[in-house]
Amino acid sequence: MINASIIGANGYTGLELLKILSLHKYVNFKHIVSKSNAGTKICDMYPQLQMYKGKNFDDLNLGEIAKESDIVFAALPNGVSAGICEELIKLNGNLKIIDLSADFRYNDVNVYEKTYSVTHSCPELLKTAVYGLPEIYFDKIKNAKIIGNPGCYTTCSILSLYPILKEKLVNPDTIIIDAKSGVSGAGKKAETDYSFCEVNENFCAYGVTTHRHTSEIEQELSLAAGKKLNLCFTPHLLPIQRGILATIYCDLQKDVNAQKIVSAYQKYYKGKPFVFVNDIGVMPQIKEVKNTNNLKIGCQIDYRLNKLIIVGVIDNLIKGASGQAVQNMNIMFNIPQTEGLNFISNYI
Amino acid sequence: MINASIIGANGYTGLELLKILSLHKYVNFKHIVSKSNAGTKICDMYPQLQMYKGKNFDDLNLGEIAKESDIVFAALPNGVSAGICEELIKLNGNLKIIDLSADFRYNDVNVYEKTYSVTHSCPELLKTAVYGLPEIYFDKIKNAKIIGNPGCYTTCSILSLYPILKEKLVNPDTIIIDAKSGVSGAGKKAETDYSFCEVNENFCAYGVTTHRHTSEIEQELSLAAGKKLNLCFTPHLLPIQRGILATIYCDLQKDVNAQKIVSAYQKYYKGKPFVFVNDIGVMPQIKEVKNTNNLKIGCQIDYRLNKLIIVGVIDNLIKGASGQAVQNMNIMFNIPQTEGLNFISNYI
Amino acid sequence: MINASIIGANGYTGLELLKILSLHKYVNFKHIVSKSNAGTKICDMYPQLQMYKGKNFDDLNLGEIAKESDIVFAALPNGVSAGICEELIKLNGNLKIIDLSADFRYNDVNVYEKTYSVTHSCPELLKTAVYGLPEIYFDKIKNAKIIGNPGCYTTCSILSLYPILKEKLVNPDTIIIDAKSGVSGAGKKAETDYSFCEVNENFCAYGVTTHRHTSEIEQELSLAAGKKLNLCFTPHLLPIQRGILATIYCDLQKDVNAQKIVSAYQKYYKGKPFVFVNDIGVMPQIKEVKNTNNLKIGCQIDYRLNKLIIVGVIDNLIKGASGQAVQNMNIMFNIPQTEGLNFISNYI
Amino acid sequence: MINASIIGANGYTGLELLKILSLHKYVNFKHIVSKSNAGTKICDMYPQLQMYKGKNFDDLNLGEIAKESDIVFAALPNGVSAGICEELIKLNGNLKIIDLSADFRYNDVNVYEKTYSVTHSCPELLKTAVYGLPEIYFDKIKNAKIIGNPGCYTTCSILSLYPILKEKLVNPDTIIIDAKSGVSGAGKKAETDYSFCEVNENFCAYGVTTHRHTSEIEQELSLAAGKKLNLCFTPHLLPIQRGILATIYCDLQKDVNAQKIVSAYQKYYKGKPFVFVNDIGVMPQIKEVKNTNNLKIGCQIDYRLNKLIIVGVIDNLIKGASGQAVQNMNIMFNIPQTEGLNFISNYI
Repeated sequence: MINASIIGANGYTGLELLKILSLHKYVNFKHIVSKSNAGTKICDMYPQLQMYKGKNFDDLNLGEIAKESDIVFAALPNGVSAGICEELIKLNGNLKIIDLSADFRYNDVNVYEKTYSVTHSCPELLKTAVYGLPEIYFDKIKNAKIIGNPGCYTTCSILSLYPILKEKLVNPDTIIIDAKSGVSGAGKKAETDYSFCEVNENFCAYGVTTHRHTSEIEQELSLAAGKKLNLCFTPHLLPIQRGILATIYCDLQKDVNAQKIVSAYQKYYKGKPFVFVNDIGVMPQIKEVKNTNNLKIGCQIDYRLNKLIIVGVIDNLIKGASGQAVQNMNIMFNIPQTEGLNFISNYI
Repeated sequence: MINASIIGANGYTGLELLKILSLHKYVNFKHIVSKSNAGTKICDMYPQLQMYKGKNFDDLNLGEIAKESDIVFAALPNGVSAGICEELIKLNGNLKIIDLSADFRYNDVNVYEKTYSVTHSCPELLKTAVYGLPEIYFDKIKNAKIIGNPGCYTTCSILSLYPILKEKLVNPDTIIIDAKSGVSGAGKKAETDYSFCEVNENFCAYGVTTHRHTSEIEQELSLAAGKKLNLCFTPHLLPIQRGILATIYCDLQKDVNAQKIVSAYQKYYKGKPFVFVNDIGVMPQIKEVKNTNNLKIGCQIDYRLNKLIIVGVIDNLIKGASGQAVQNMNIMFNIPQTEGLNFISNYI
Repeated sequence: MINASIIGANGYTGLELLKILSLHKYVNFKHIVSKSNAGTKICDMYPQLQMYKGKNFDDLNLGEIAKESDIVFAALPNGVSAGICEELIKLNGNLKIIDLSADFRYNDVNVYEKTYSVTHSCPELLKTAVYGLPEIYFDKIKNAKIIGNPGCYTTCSILSLYPILKEKLVNPDTIIIDAKSGVSGAGKKAETDYSFCEVNENFCAYGVTTHRHTSEIEQELSLAAGKKLNLCFTPHLLPIQRGILATIYCDLQKDVNAQKIVSAYQKYYKGKPFVFVNDIGVMPQIKEVKNTNNLKIGCQIDYRLNKLIIVGVIDNLIKGASGQAVQNMNIMFNIPQTEGLNFISNYI
Repeated sequence: MINASIIGANGYTGLELLKILSLHKYVNFKHIVSKSNAGTKICDMYPQLQMYKGKNFDDLNLGEIAKESDIVFAALPNGVSAGICEELIKLNGNLKIIDLSADFRYNDVNVYEKTYSVTHSCPELLKTAVYGLPEIYFDKIKNAKIIGNPGCYTTCSILSLYPILKEKLVNPDTIIIDAKSGVSGAGKKAETDYSFCEVNENFCAYGVTTHRHTSEIEQELSLAAGKKLNLCFTPHLLPIQRGILATIYCDLQKDVNAQKIVSAYQKYYKGKPFVFVNDIGVMPQIKEVKNTNNLKIGCQIDYRLNKLIIVGVIDNLIKGASGQAVQNMNIMFNIPQTEGLNFISNYI
């Protein structure tokens, strides 16, 4: 059994972790921390979590957490998480950490600091962290101490493009990602902007040219392409609770046809339990992956324009956050990747 | 031209007043007050209100408002409004006020104070106020100085039952009102409980046996029935932006048939421009009145149980608040009731 | 392993059965029948059901189904199902059948025929059928051949009231059920009335005084009350995909207090894995049971009116249909009731 | 007074025409035709259209329509409309026609026939038709006999790009339009694919590389650019009732800055009553134009990539169909463009 703790259990990613891990065969909860709700019953906030009946949210006691846990899931704000993870590691050098913030996702601390306008509290630790995309970094994750769990837009964007760039099938300088996310992507927020009346029956772009996930996507896709690339990323807010769909445009290299596209995806994703690549021309929909850890990818070639159009879909809270975190934990503890993650989408 | 001011223009009822009055032939705006947003552009908060381009929200300057306005719409919190209205009246004895809070709705100050847990700041003024339901109090409204503009649940409930109780067709001690409201009924709130993620794809009852509109409905229906009555009122939260539907149950008196029901409604509502009574058995839907000042009523008799089932629908922000306020203003200024209120529902 | 077949697998209850049973430890699928889709790939209609890759919808071959199945789930139209079930039984006397239509739900064939305006094709078989509400008929279900799986509104209404009537805490002649259902309750329909544009941002009552579930609820609650009762049932259409909430009103008998209410529920539901009764005054919401086989019940007493107000919530497709069907199967085959049904609600 | 008739009044564009024209000062209805609903009451289908009480849908009587109407709005299927319009013109040479189908939108009949896979029944008449985009073709519309009223995606796309291409600020061969539409864009459909359960909480791309509006957009933007261009157009289905948002990407020409972009829009849209161009970096949202005839445009420059990102929003049923049709009528009859179209968005 794995002794696990969650810090920041009251947000939406924390809630998903509570749900997923409560059905996980090999997990034993130690600390379920929410500083702002310490002492209140978990079931008062989440009446659907009957299996936590009698349990309260814990206060943040780093010493106890470090001592009693094999793994800690940190679901904390960007810039706050690094410091807490650093302390935990100091207290227990054997502890494994999966950090759901942006604090351990970057190879270059300068890019992180510029993107998030904070000073990183432990750049040395950052160097030891592994970017938690199992479909790309499986072997590194296996032996990692600290996982920087990827962002939701980034998971969807990177995995949709990775094989195509690795195989140099498109011009890496022509990538446009038009991404649309459900509202839970913004977290559990007491803000008018995310109130039902303001979001429902609406749709909008936001953060145009400035969204922070851009640099994270560029880091990984530059590695895939073997050269530094810049891309255009535009997020939008969908009036749905969960799910991301990214429509991606790029220029095909000469003589690339559908077969080469399909082969590239097969080469990298064959046997990957959570990635599904459709036949050419069949585009996936958000409802096919909602409430699952799956990514589905569809492609179409625009022969008039010699462009490739890719559509990728994930559930932002699962494959885009907590499900991927559990997938990473499974890998770190030599458990089948799919343990606890065998979900079927609620299509309706 | 009527010189009008709004105090509390930044909430949803304020927004509706800004929309409705901007197209009203006889209204000239003087002050558009939002203390918390004073100095900011109206169009920055509401980009759709292009006609207010160049105008800012005003600060609360009671002296100027009282001097320059013929009428003031007060869209302020319960308990706050009364004091401000009192001051305005002191400053200008000719001023007309339509108060959208609960502060001037009650005949008995004790019921108000018990219901809202506040001390009324001007009970003498309350005595002069008229309850602003035009379909019942048209003549009193004509000559009123202060209008207590009715609540949304109350407008729908009272008007759906009024003719039936006046004509003594049902047992007044058997009334159950199962009401359902869109989210805008809660106002413009920065609370997690009203966030998209928490409200969407959900439905719930709230305030069961304790909702404050109960006493307001009982006041008016007791008057209609000619005797003090108590009733059961249960509100629910619908995952829609606007609209109220009330399903009402009561026991028929002996020998009451469909014809008598229909006749009662005709007697009181014939010629009323905003009330539509369906044929027996045809139930109205929220979308038939959305974005209008209309009330639609449908009835069905359960002969097995000798019960009358009434369904009433309104738009909570228009007939349930700002539209009714404008209807009251029209009556106070001898303008056709329908001026500025000639809306067609956006059924889709 | 249980050899199971589904007839009518292309509707929403069929889809839920496919989802639930694909993760059930002891079920082995034999025939997945959809006459109208015979030969087409299951994954073409439901791309999220990747585990059925390579399988097609089967045509209706009664002989093979009867021979090869231990149990058949019939998800067929009312009036059609009885005949097919009869034939299956003739072909294999050991076959167990769970029928999700109304055809085997009634004790009195006359009530069925009047309610559904059809002649029952096998009234003798009907007599042997058991009403599939495990919380009431567990022992009968254990030994049943044919289960009449209850309707969605009925499951929610009956279970919310059963202990209260058994213990004679309310006047059985005063029951009013104001029920609200998500759109999937209408099935998978190609009708404008259930199109997104017509349903969204709307709410309406329908079938007022005439809904067919009324007679089914009355049958069971009359048995609970020990006397024939009639009740008032009003369904409404919620703009959500799934979930039912019933708000129930009835007059308390003398000297009934909260404690007696709570004790009654405990007496009948203690140890029942899918029923959760809240503390007095805490009302359950649809999102607490969405995508689960759970029923949650909350109560409040209106002391002014001496009324009991009960709110019950279920997922119409799971506890109200396919989940309950699997629960019945588990009981019939001596498997723990919860096998395959251990779901956590997706609260967001 | 203008004598107007509608053919095809039972769809969503027909419904919008009925709503808009019922409040139009100068319109007198002659025939409201729905062949499939001839003889049924308009209010039975649309209970919110109380002003049509007593009126039925008419059958299609071309002779009477041609004789008694000054203008006919044809809201008929593509390929069907042309033939009917041709007959009407033969019967009354003075008749004006606004056709909401695609039949009179193309300059080149071959492109039309290829796009819609039909033979045009009256290519000679097509040559006389004017493309009904008032912001571009005001003077031609003034004197037109037949208007080909533009499509919804096309209106939004063309007007968002027109000034930019006219002023040669971007490379016309780099245009990507990622467009998202509410469900009413598909019309009033009795299809499972557009049912609430299938659309809600979902999002998807469709018609990738094959949508028919592509050729219509290319026709007009080629004219604007002064050269034949091809572009990439990807439509998506939003789970909202109405509204279109197009996110448009293109490469800036050398030395183009924000000021030049702003100036271009001002040059072409200053004084245009329905077009609103935001300050650079302020992106419009669908709710700002819902239920209005307005188009709002926002832009942002991505200096890293030298790309221009444009967001345009309209209401697909009003500016994208029926509102634009009435705007065209106003122009044809020398009435102020805004008559009957002075709507304020219902932001909530």
